[in-house]
Amino acid sequence: MGDMTSMVKKAEAYLESAGKLTEEYLRGYMPNENEVPGTLHSAMRYALLIGGKRLRPALARAAYEFFGGKPSESICLAMCALEMLHTFSLIHDDLPCMDDDDFRRGKPSTHKVYGEATAVLAGDALCIFAFELIARAGNVAVIEELAHSLGTKGMIGGQIIDIESEGKSVDSATVDYIHYHKTAALIEASLVVGALLAGAEKEDLEHIREFGKGIGLVFQIVDDILDIESSTEKLGKDVGSDVKNGKATYPAVLGLEASKQKATELYSKSLTHLEKLQGKNTETLRNVAALIIERKH
Amino acid sequence: MGDMTSMVKKAEAYLESAGKLTEEYLRGYMPNENEVPGTLHSAMRYALLIGGKRLRPALARAAYEFFGGKPSESICLAMCALEMLHTFSLIHDDLPCMDDDDFRRGKPSTHKVYGEATAVLAGDALCIFAFELIARAGNVAVIEELAHSLGTKGMIGGQIIDIESEGKSVDSATVDYIHYHKTAALIEASLVVGALLAGAEKEDLEHIREFGKGIGLVFQIVDDILDIESSTEKLGKDVGSDVKNGKATYPAVLGLEASKQKATELYSKSLTHLEKLQGKNTETLRNVAALIIERKH
Repeated sequence: MGDMTSMVKKAEAYLESAGKLTEEYLRGYMPNENEVPGTLHSAMRYALLIGGKRLRPALARAAYEFFGGKPSESICLAMCALEMLHTFSLIHDDLPCMDDDDFRRGKPSTHKVYGEATAVLAGDALCIFAFELIARAGNVAVIEELAHSLGTKGMIGGQIIDIESEGKSVDSATVDYIHYHKTAALIEASLVVGALLAGAEKEDLEHIREFGKGIGLVFQIVDDILDIESSTEKLGKDVGSDVKNGKATYPAVLGLEASKQKATELYSKSLTHLEKLQGKNTETLRNVAALIIERKH
Repeated sequence: MGDMTSMVKKAEAYLESAGKLTEEYLRGYMPNENEVPGTLHSAMRYALLIGGKRLRPALARAAYEFFGGKPSESICLAMCALEMLHTFSLIHDDLPCMDDDDFRRGKPSTHKVYGEATAVLAGDALCIFAFELIARAGNVAVIEELAHSLGTKGMIGGQIIDIESEGKSVDSATVDYIHYHKTAALIEASLVVGALLAGAEKEDLEHIREFGKGIGLVFQIVDDILDIESSTEKLGKDVGSDVKNGKATYPAVLGLEASKQKATELYSKSLTHLEKLQGKNTETLRNVAALIIERKH
């Protein structure tokens, strides 16, 4: 297994490298502000390029390589599409009528810089451009997977139940629903998309999907814990903002210790799915899973 | 050619029949409010099913049949996807931070009934669900066409320039840009999608595209004229609301008579593209074009 510290270090290096590639591809595919409509392209680039862990593109790439995918434009397109879809969700999440967040990644949110109307349209345009890019990869199963993971049975389903649960007393099943749909579904889809593009077998797809679902939930639980424990400076957003907004989170429902316990259990369970993918080198995927549970920001 | 009155009548019958089919398909594909997340499904169904001409699905179907497409699930999926994409754009257009319209099709807008957050998410979800449905048709060229017609080089490009031009003095080139992108691009794509699904030849695709671009612009010019001339009751929205909002419209820039002249010229030009599609029965497409220029509401 290797000790956690060195696994995390290797994962950080992998993410840094995949992140740089993602940014390079994004700059290449995204029209710039000299092209009409300039303000909109500028807002899209602002939201895309102010930073971020680029976790979803990195996961897609890791799964693609894991299943033997060779360097190709398809995986570059998928990495960009995933980051655009994630960014679209953040722009709309931050709107005044949604979570009303003025900051994202330590910088003013898109609507604070460009106004609400442009932010709504920049989010819409990123979502649509993601589908245009991924269509170029020529694989309809990938498009179905992505759309399903984002729609009412995926991310947006999680967002609406999240909003409807604000300030209410919710049970742990509801928190599971919200966090699986709001966060884990797109993380799971990132891995599945990479696997599909590499031509993974059906049975292997199910294991990588279950691995993704597990680490996706771990990611959200750790996020909730960090929201309470970390400092504003490190996280780049208002600390405790979820608690302040009366959000349904794992620590709020289960308590801090039980949340940490749950994360550990999900982490172990997700590794069992990796173990079933025999005969392949799971190192990178294991390292990224370690980073997800160990991350401090 | 046939006289315009009888052509319009035939087109109305075609649209009514295609519209009923579209609504039947939409009710079939759309999850209902008993499925989680119920509020979101309810908002999506409300926006989709409060009425509308169903022009885009009808155009897709007409082009599909014109190029010899046989009854298939693909065209049903495309008809629904087009209506969902159009409805997504209307929900977001009506938001307070956009055009701030309280009524749509004579009924309260989605955000007036369900609140802003749900309206944003219902629009997002319809856009995403449209891509999920159309992916099932298995044709990536169709997905690329749709995404391109909606993105920054299509509908959303038109919307942002429209917003940025409000209350300003604009030239006719800007109005052309706004209306081609905001309205004509998706009408053009509707025809192209139908043609692609029927397996139309490349050269024929270009003629149907030019036909669509022409009647798409005619549709918008007639809309602007009706906005001034028609009564609130017939149109189901505030009459003169575009003028009131200082919108860049053809009548505002060219005057009413020159706008009518322009519509007639574009209509004639679009018919020349139909004539180049030899050996096929263009009757339905001609009838729909006649309806678009003659419509009174």
